[in-house]
Amino acid sequence: MIIVMKREASQENIQRVVRVLEEYRLQAHLSTGKQVTIIGVIGDKSVLTDANLEVMDGVDKLVPITETYKLSNRKFNPAPSVIKVKDFTIGGGNFSIVAGPCSVEGREQILETARFLKSCGVHFLRGGTFKPRTSPYAFQGLGLEGLQYLKEAADETGMAIITEVTSLRTLEIALDHVDVFQIGARNMHSFELLKEVGKTGKPVVLKRGLSATIDEWLNAAEYIMTGGNSQVILCERGIRTFETATRNTLDISAVPVIQQKSHLPILIDPSHASGVREYVPALCRAAVSVGADGIMVEVHPQPAKAFSDGAQSLNFEQFESLLNVLKPLAEICGKEL
Amino acid sequence: MIIVMKREASQENIQRVVRVLEEYRLQAHLSTGKQVTIIGVIGDKSVLTDANLEVMDGVDKLVPITETYKLSNRKFNPAPSVIKVKDFTIGGGNFSIVAGPCSVEGREQILETARFLKSCGVHFLRGGTFKPRTSPYAFQGLGLEGLQYLKEAADETGMAIITEVTSLRTLEIALDHVDVFQIGARNMHSFELLKEVGKTGKPVVLKRGLSATIDEWLNAAEYIMTGGNSQVILCERGIRTFETATRNTLDISAVPVIQQKSHLPILIDPSHASGVREYVPALCRAAVSVGADGIMVEVHPQPAKAFSDGAQSLNFEQFESLLNVLKPLAEICGKEL
Amino acid sequence: MIIVMKREASQENIQRVVRVLEEYRLQAHLSTGKQVTIIGVIGDKSVLTDANLEVMDGVDKLVPITETYKLSNRKFNPAPSVIKVKDFTIGGGNFSIVAGPCSVEGREQILETARFLKSCGVHFLRGGTFKPRTSPYAFQGLGLEGLQYLKEAADETGMAIITEVTSLRTLEIALDHVDVFQIGARNMHSFELLKEVGKTGKPVVLKRGLSATIDEWLNAAEYIMTGGNSQVILCERGIRTFETATRNTLDISAVPVIQQKSHLPILIDPSHASGVREYVPALCRAAVSVGADGIMVEVHPQPAKAFSDGAQSLNFEQFESLLNVLKPLAEICGKEL
Amino acid sequence: MIIVMKREASQENIQRVVRVLEEYRLQAHLSTGKQVTIIGVIGDKSVLTDANLEVMDGVDKLVPITETYKLSNRKFNPAPSVIKVKDFTIGGGNFSIVAGPCSVEGREQILETARFLKSCGVHFLRGGTFKPRTSPYAFQGLGLEGLQYLKEAADETGMAIITEVTSLRTLEIALDHVDVFQIGARNMHSFELLKEVGKTGKPVVLKRGLSATIDEWLNAAEYIMTGGNSQVILCERGIRTFETATRNTLDISAVPVIQQKSHLPILIDPSHASGVREYVPALCRAAVSVGADGIMVEVHPQPAKAFSDGAQSLNFEQFESLLNVLKPLAEICGKEL
Repeated sequence: MIIVMKREASQENIQRVVRVLEEYRLQAHLSTGKQVTIIGVIGDKSVLTDANLEVMDGVDKLVPITETYKLSNRKFNPAPSVIKVKDFTIGGGNFSIVAGPCSVEGREQILETARFLKSCGVHFLRGGTFKPRTSPYAFQGLGLEGLQYLKEAADETGMAIITEVTSLRTLEIALDHVDVFQIGARNMHSFELLKEVGKTGKPVVLKRGLSATIDEWLNAAEYIMTGGNSQVILCERGIRTFETATRNTLDISAVPVIQQKSHLPILIDPSHASGVREYVPALCRAAVSVGADGIMVEVHPQPAKAFSDGAQSLNFEQFESLLNVLKPLAEICGKEL
Repeated sequence: MIIVMKREASQENIQRVVRVLEEYRLQAHLSTGKQVTIIGVIGDKSVLTDANLEVMDGVDKLVPITETYKLSNRKFNPAPSVIKVKDFTIGGGNFSIVAGPCSVEGREQILETARFLKSCGVHFLRGGTFKPRTSPYAFQGLGLEGLQYLKEAADETGMAIITEVTSLRTLEIALDHVDVFQIGARNMHSFELLKEVGKTGKPVVLKRGLSATIDEWLNAAEYIMTGGNSQVILCERGIRTFETATRNTLDISAVPVIQQKSHLPILIDPSHASGVREYVPALCRAAVSVGADGIMVEVHPQPAKAFSDGAQSLNFEQFESLLNVLKPLAEICGKEL
Repeated sequence: MIIVMKREASQENIQRVVRVLEEYRLQAHLSTGKQVTIIGVIGDKSVLTDANLEVMDGVDKLVPITETYKLSNRKFNPAPSVIKVKDFTIGGGNFSIVAGPCSVEGREQILETARFLKSCGVHFLRGGTFKPRTSPYAFQGLGLEGLQYLKEAADETGMAIITEVTSLRTLEIALDHVDVFQIGARNMHSFELLKEVGKTGKPVVLKRGLSATIDEWLNAAEYIMTGGNSQVILCERGIRTFETATRNTLDISAVPVIQQKSHLPILIDPSHASGVREYVPALCRAAVSVGADGIMVEVHPQPAKAFSDGAQSLNFEQFESLLNVLKPLAEICGKEL
Repeated sequence: MIIVMKREASQENIQRVVRVLEEYRLQAHLSTGKQVTIIGVIGDKSVLTDANLEVMDGVDKLVPITETYKLSNRKFNPAPSVIKVKDFTIGGGNFSIVAGPCSVEGREQILETARFLKSCGVHFLRGGTFKPRTSPYAFQGLGLEGLQYLKEAADETGMAIITEVTSLRTLEIALDHVDVFQIGARNMHSFELLKEVGKTGKPVVLKRGLSATIDEWLNAAEYIMTGGNSQVILCERGIRTFETATRNTLDISAVPVIQQKSHLPILIDPSHASGVREYVPALCRAAVSVGADGIMVEVHPQPAKAFSDGAQSLNFEQFESLLNVLKPLAEICGKEL
């Protein structure tokens, strides 16, 4: 960390900051410029979380140099993480496809979808059973009943199940039914939930918050990992910007940025990012070639009858055409699909 | 709602949409323009949540005309809400001041602050005991111990207590200790928490999410109110934009917008909006004159020693100067302070 | 266009709006719902630009249904545009590479770069000679001298030249030297410049403004095209968001959105979008597979000595490696590179 | 400036950076931490604009410490600027009101408005004659004819005229007719125009760009001031965010931020910021009490017949009511209105 002093800071102001740092057993390196003095702080800055250096007299601003996240930081763990789920693997040269309906709507719907996806070679089945919806008057999910249908689909097909948990309560309900927990964009900042999910030991797909910076996202991963669970899979699903032609703006650059800053695998969710079915195939192709570890995509037997997000769901035929395009692309990009 | 058909939509496409609407017992009014046909939908659109009209052949887009929130909507409840807390009132011509430290850090700190604020005529004491922090390595709050100190401060001074709850678990812990629950920006989308808080019957301060639109915010209020609790107080605390000179961008226009769309009272939190102590007084003055129902402001006996958010906290002297400026301003604006 | 009346609008309010529409020889279709009345407007709405219907008594809001741009609109010109420059083609199944330094810095630098790019099979040479820089103290470009070096490089190699014009004055200076004009992000809203560039009859690369919506971008293209010049090439170069890990946020979804809304070809500029050299190759790969018509990428013989944007420029070796990756990718995506 | 070295940077990497700095006659102060080495750069960093330190081996990132703008920087010119226009003054304890229609639409319209505003005690008359409009099919302004009407209105009433210039061409046309030039949000980045306007010696209202940071805005002011013209008046008119309830988001915090960073006066334009007439009075009240030096507000004799921006214009009666509210507010805030 660097402390930038104000232009008008007195020698006494500077010395007082240095003394505080020394109290915390940190070293201070002064650089006295023509305009301002800056103080380089050397040592473990985490001891400083309760020292408000920025309100000390003469201090202009603090400039952090090193990241606050450690377990998710590539600097400390250079090798890319590989996550095992049942017999399947995310990361490590795989291009993983997570597919399924936005919501589990009934036994037939999810079984039909699972069988179809299985026949396409898809390993991961997604389906929401606890739905966080903007309006309280919209469909809120089937809850436990939905989980049971998902489990039945998994038992029959051998697929791994990914479903969203939205609170400590729904985490507890879902615990025995699912293979991978999903933390949705709206809960990326629900730190208690992150900690609890971190204790379960099951892999977690962590979606990026609607307006979360990449640093905040990796700090959220850190919450899960401090619980001892290093099986975190990131998922970019679009951020909120001024553009309204798409529901969100897919931040495709997040893939190379994450791969530089972290060892965790990263998926792309083109369905939520765009909100428009017609744009999904193009974004899936971009996901493969940009180097993502997979996609999470909404597939529904009859999108026109979906209870939620029908406008962004592919039907079976569209999904199959998509797979036919992605396979040679993955191969040329050196990925196993 | 209006359904805009594609330029190339066939008569059959249009008739099929009309038939679906009729199945839902809604009326369809067609306007056939030179370029496109639009279909006005008349009746209770809430029955349509599971009909994905936008994926029907020939449909270009749906344009919502009426809001999805009802209980928080001024159109249905024109009179401004007035919220009673102990002997105090928020809304109804009052300019309410909610003040206190970001975090409860100890018994002495909170008692000293409460006594000082009480002596200034402040009625509402805030203090965080469960802290949602970006980094898992930052101070996370005193929990129940903090609540007990807050309660002691309230008992001694007669002030009303406002504290943040972050999950179903902390809501349960806090239930008997506080007068007003606060839902923080990061939990505005935690719909289960909103519903539970709505069942307690205690007033709730609902902060706006970091990137929540005003419509989403009023829908979040709707989640609380559908539980039967109409005592919701909105709090604008800055939204996330590209500007970095302030921590967030205070959306001051949210005050007149909310007052047009909703009957709920609205506070402004200049401390979190700006993140910089020096900017807080100017923003508080703006809050009074723009017509807000009050402010929520961070005050700490020794900001330089605060465990969190010291950089944006006022000390006692600064708070007193601020009050001296706000009082005549409130008077001229017709508000009771 | 649809006019949504207020809940409390009277019959007289509604009739007055209808009369105004009739004065403009437009038809009004009323749909009277339970909550509100909406009025569909049929006919050429462009006559309404000086009628402020939204301030008439009883009017709640206007909802536009059709786009304001016509010449750039795919609805009216379904076939994708193909732009000819010298012997080269942009669009029509080509994946065009525009490469070169951010700024022309000297004769040797640009000749060396042009010869290298030519040897790689690149057809389009970019280089800035009038540089719009945030700070007046930064390098502002070589001006006419730079144009002459560019021209020399083009004459020797046969490449086509693309350079930015920033005002009516620099447009005039550049007129005889360049093959393709570039309108930079900061000038996307400089409507007089757009009109003048539209009169030159030379192809124009139109970059998207830092915070321009896709609709505004297509309206800017419309300004060029109303001058009679239909040779417009769009270029997505990142939009401004809250994320700071990259200089801007590349809106990759703009490619399928533009391809749906417009017939104009679209390039991607990963150098300005990310601002970080390390991220450029991944974004170029994404550009190919998402379906863009090409890329505009910064290449410099010695990025460490570039006068501007060195941090985002590739050196020759990096550019060659990139090409080796892009070629098979383009082939599999059905594009000529 | 601080140079942060990568974790894996070698001693040789570090020494090479130091040598480059020394070549530029700058001093390097090394701080070697446990994780990284940082290098404080001392001396005039402006010599470094053509050294791309960030692409040198081992360099992680550059952290700027001091601002790039100087003439507009309060650190170098602590006293607030006061701008004289005819017999009137902006800054220096005045709350200046700039009012008038969005566009000059005819002789009668502007004379009637000027007379009315004069009778209210308003000194500054605004009116657009060259209109930058998103669509080429919208009204583009009366041009020179409009300027002549404005001049006539100024001659009759003694008011000072403010009008927007959009290019070198319109600047030349307007030069003899106006008292204050306005640079609109869309041209804040038109650096050549800024330089030329800086040479005229006439005061300039510089609106903030739609997505310009405060630092970029002050750098734009620097472009004007390097031409020798220090009479710059800033105008905050809302920034582009995700919120759609208002046309833009008024960044009210920009007022205290600017007052800390710069000596230039700052106005607020609530009409463009909100785009909604009903919200204008509340935002004007906020402008007074937050400490702005004035407002720029749209007033039209018959908003319903305005050629542009009618929805955000006040009529005469509304403007008079507003003034009656603002006067006592200004007085209590210590401002002359």
